[in-house]
Amino acid sequence: MEKEISIGLLGLGVVGSGVIQIINDHQKELQHQLGHSIKVAKVLVRDIEKSREIEIAEDALTTNPDDVINNDNIDVIVEVMGGIDEAREHMLKAFAAKKHIVTANKDLIALHGPELEQAAQENGCDLFYEASVGGGIPLLRSLSDGLVSDRIEQVMGIVNGTTNYILTKMDEDGQSYEDALADAQKLGFAEANPTADVEGLDAARKMVILARLSFLTNVELDDVDVKGISDLSIIDLDYGKKLDLTMKLIGFANRHDNQVEVSVQPTFLPTTHPLSSVKNEYNAVYVNAEAVGETMFYGAGAGGLPTATAIMSDVVEVIKNKLLGVNGKQLIKPSFKKELTPPENKISQFYLRLHVKDEIGAFASISELFNQRGISFERILQTPKDNSDLAEVVVVTHQTSLQNFTDALKLLDELNVVKAVKSYFRVEGGA
Amino acid sequence: MEKEISIGLLGLGVVGSGVIQIINDHQKELQHQLGHSIKVAKVLVRDIEKSREIEIAEDALTTNPDDVINNDNIDVIVEVMGGIDEAREHMLKAFAAKKHIVTANKDLIALHGPELEQAAQENGCDLFYEASVGGGIPLLRSLSDGLVSDRIEQVMGIVNGTTNYILTKMDEDGQSYEDALADAQKLGFAEANPTADVEGLDAARKMVILARLSFLTNVELDDVDVKGISDLSIIDLDYGKKLDLTMKLIGFANRHDNQVEVSVQPTFLPTTHPLSSVKNEYNAVYVNAEAVGETMFYGAGAGGLPTATAIMSDVVEVIKNKLLGVNGKQLIKPSFKKELTPPENKISQFYLRLHVKDEIGAFASISELFNQRGISFERILQTPKDNSDLAEVVVVTHQTSLQNFTDALKLLDELNVVKAVKSYFRVEGGA
Repeated sequence: MEKEISIGLLGLGVVGSGVIQIINDHQKELQHQLGHSIKVAKVLVRDIEKSREIEIAEDALTTNPDDVINNDNIDVIVEVMGGIDEAREHMLKAFAAKKHIVTANKDLIALHGPELEQAAQENGCDLFYEASVGGGIPLLRSLSDGLVSDRIEQVMGIVNGTTNYILTKMDEDGQSYEDALADAQKLGFAEANPTADVEGLDAARKMVILARLSFLTNVELDDVDVKGISDLSIIDLDYGKKLDLTMKLIGFANRHDNQVEVSVQPTFLPTTHPLSSVKNEYNAVYVNAEAVGETMFYGAGAGGLPTATAIMSDVVEVIKNKLLGVNGKQLIKPSFKKELTPPENKISQFYLRLHVKDEIGAFASISELFNQRGISFERILQTPKDNSDLAEVVVVTHQTSLQNFTDALKLLDELNVVKAVKSYFRVEGGA
Repeated sequence: MEKEISIGLLGLGVVGSGVIQIINDHQKELQHQLGHSIKVAKVLVRDIEKSREIEIAEDALTTNPDDVINNDNIDVIVEVMGGIDEAREHMLKAFAAKKHIVTANKDLIALHGPELEQAAQENGCDLFYEASVGGGIPLLRSLSDGLVSDRIEQVMGIVNGTTNYILTKMDEDGQSYEDALADAQKLGFAEANPTADVEGLDAARKMVILARLSFLTNVELDDVDVKGISDLSIIDLDYGKKLDLTMKLIGFANRHDNQVEVSVQPTFLPTTHPLSSVKNEYNAVYVNAEAVGETMFYGAGAGGLPTATAIMSDVVEVIKNKLLGVNGKQLIKPSFKKELTPPENKISQFYLRLHVKDEIGAFASISELFNQRGISFERILQTPKDNSDLAEVVVVTHQTSLQNFTDALKLLDELNVVKAVKSYFRVEGGA
């Protein structure tokens, strides 16, 4: 009675190899769940001859996409080739051939998710992408099924392991950004060209996916304010420590009065916040929902085997749906109308570092300027700068709007005593 | 085309009221997910006249269980009455009447889960109990769906909010156990009779459920080694701080070579361990699995609304299954043969506190005794005790077996220099 279910792979890199390894190693568990065994029937690769560590029959490899996409024996395709245009074409063809697709491709889903979901639905196919955010953490499933009856208000995520590794090293070892990046590259946590990671683009793509699922509205990449960590100075991290604040690259998605705000930016959190203790290459997503309150999901955000675990959870779901005859029926359609939060409704605390003339009344005039805009300070640090007539002033404001804060910054420029605005960051997660 | 789906409730306490509140407040979200609205048609209560804060039509209340269980309009029953025998009888009758059941009743599931799952299956019914462990954290779903293709090796959980609140107060404020318990009772985090919480029974029931799902084997309550926190001394928590260890009541479930070990006991963790920063009444479950590595799920472990959120996620799943015609087809049957880990295979580090004679050679003879059993020390603290000829010795061992450690403890008794074994605890989560 035992039947074998054949799947196809597009791509055989680190994640694709992880998928094959899990299928080989955990066949017993999978069979227990499904009553069927799983076999990798065909794998699209660029070079068949390339030596590989993974065990796979040579006749399972092909350089012709059609051998996977239009293979009558294959019902489920796992897309792990990465990239955008070619992967998108393969997936649209595969849906036309009535194949279900599981993908880890965050770039593609962030850019073309709605188009692909529509194509899936029109063809009665499943499209799942648990592995696209947070690696092995069962995150999308938790948001869309676990919190299905709740109203998610805010999502804060450490969704990029490379930048979290770099920030951890800067914070714990006092390394400069450049040194920490070089270390991360040496250890394989950062790529030779780290731009997409350190400039926040990778995190932004993941936040698009999280925001869509959380708020059921069609957030796009252009809606996300993105700022990376490459300009960060160790000086601000050190001031942060004095203020009991930890710097993290936070993907932020918030809905208030049906206005949606999504950003990725270096953000200070209280050291006691659960996200502050997420170290090194780990990922975590912290969710605030109306009924459930705070929840957090933590784990390995990348890596072949963790990501492959998420892929296989989707593959199992596709196969279960197939055995029950319900494929293509569980897609969530973004349907609430999207309205973006204007700057006057983006509310947070701010950290601000200034160089000011070290003279009587200097701080009073700054304080007065902020007060006039209704902004008061929660914390103030003032330190004379060695060998100069300047002082370094760091303040943490109480909550105010982004509009209000940036207006105040402009007025600061006109103040004679202010020599330079050195840096400012949002402060989230406070009381 | 819009249809209304009627559900019934058994019980209308804090959690039942939460269910009704969520259905009232989030009807729009639910309708969006299901294409149908949800209505609470009948609620079994003990006293119809009792004044309630929740909005519910008086004719929806009944004192006759049959009005819910044998109500032709009701397909889904939410059991939130608690207790064991009566709830079990109602549920068995409800399955016989082909009703699907969602429950938050950890006691019942821990004791009679397999019997109830069998009854559900025989009647083609769903039985879900996400709310039984970890309140609003989507935990069971993550373990059974998210990690479906992985092999879970170890689960460590802070699954009881009352004891975690008490331990946090002891740790942070230096309160005694008695004072912290009194505070917890004042704030509603502990019940007037706190026995089930503080003696570990509540946690043990939850760990039975987690271990069954994680290892797919029929763990029973009698298989769990249980030790509560009522004997804990602030002295040990203080020594823990000096050793960078945090005391938590840890539910521990481990599988190694198909041997399964489940326990609940006060346990020291490194302060850097993710579970150490779980404070107050919060819950968290930390999972080690072969492929995915470490993941952690964190959130409110109790409370009406969080627990109701978990219940409603199950209700939505039952209704989706109903719309797809696949109810009763997704149960996991525990099927791997259970083998319990013998004491010689229970491996951990240990913390041990002794009173010894403050004389030359005392520590050497203790050290010698442990060395003879192959147990070496990772950390040692020795402090003279004021106004006595005794010294207090605290050691943390390297990894050894429980058998080996308890054998060594027995031999310690025979050593003339050892005046008393004051306490010992497992140390988990070390390198």
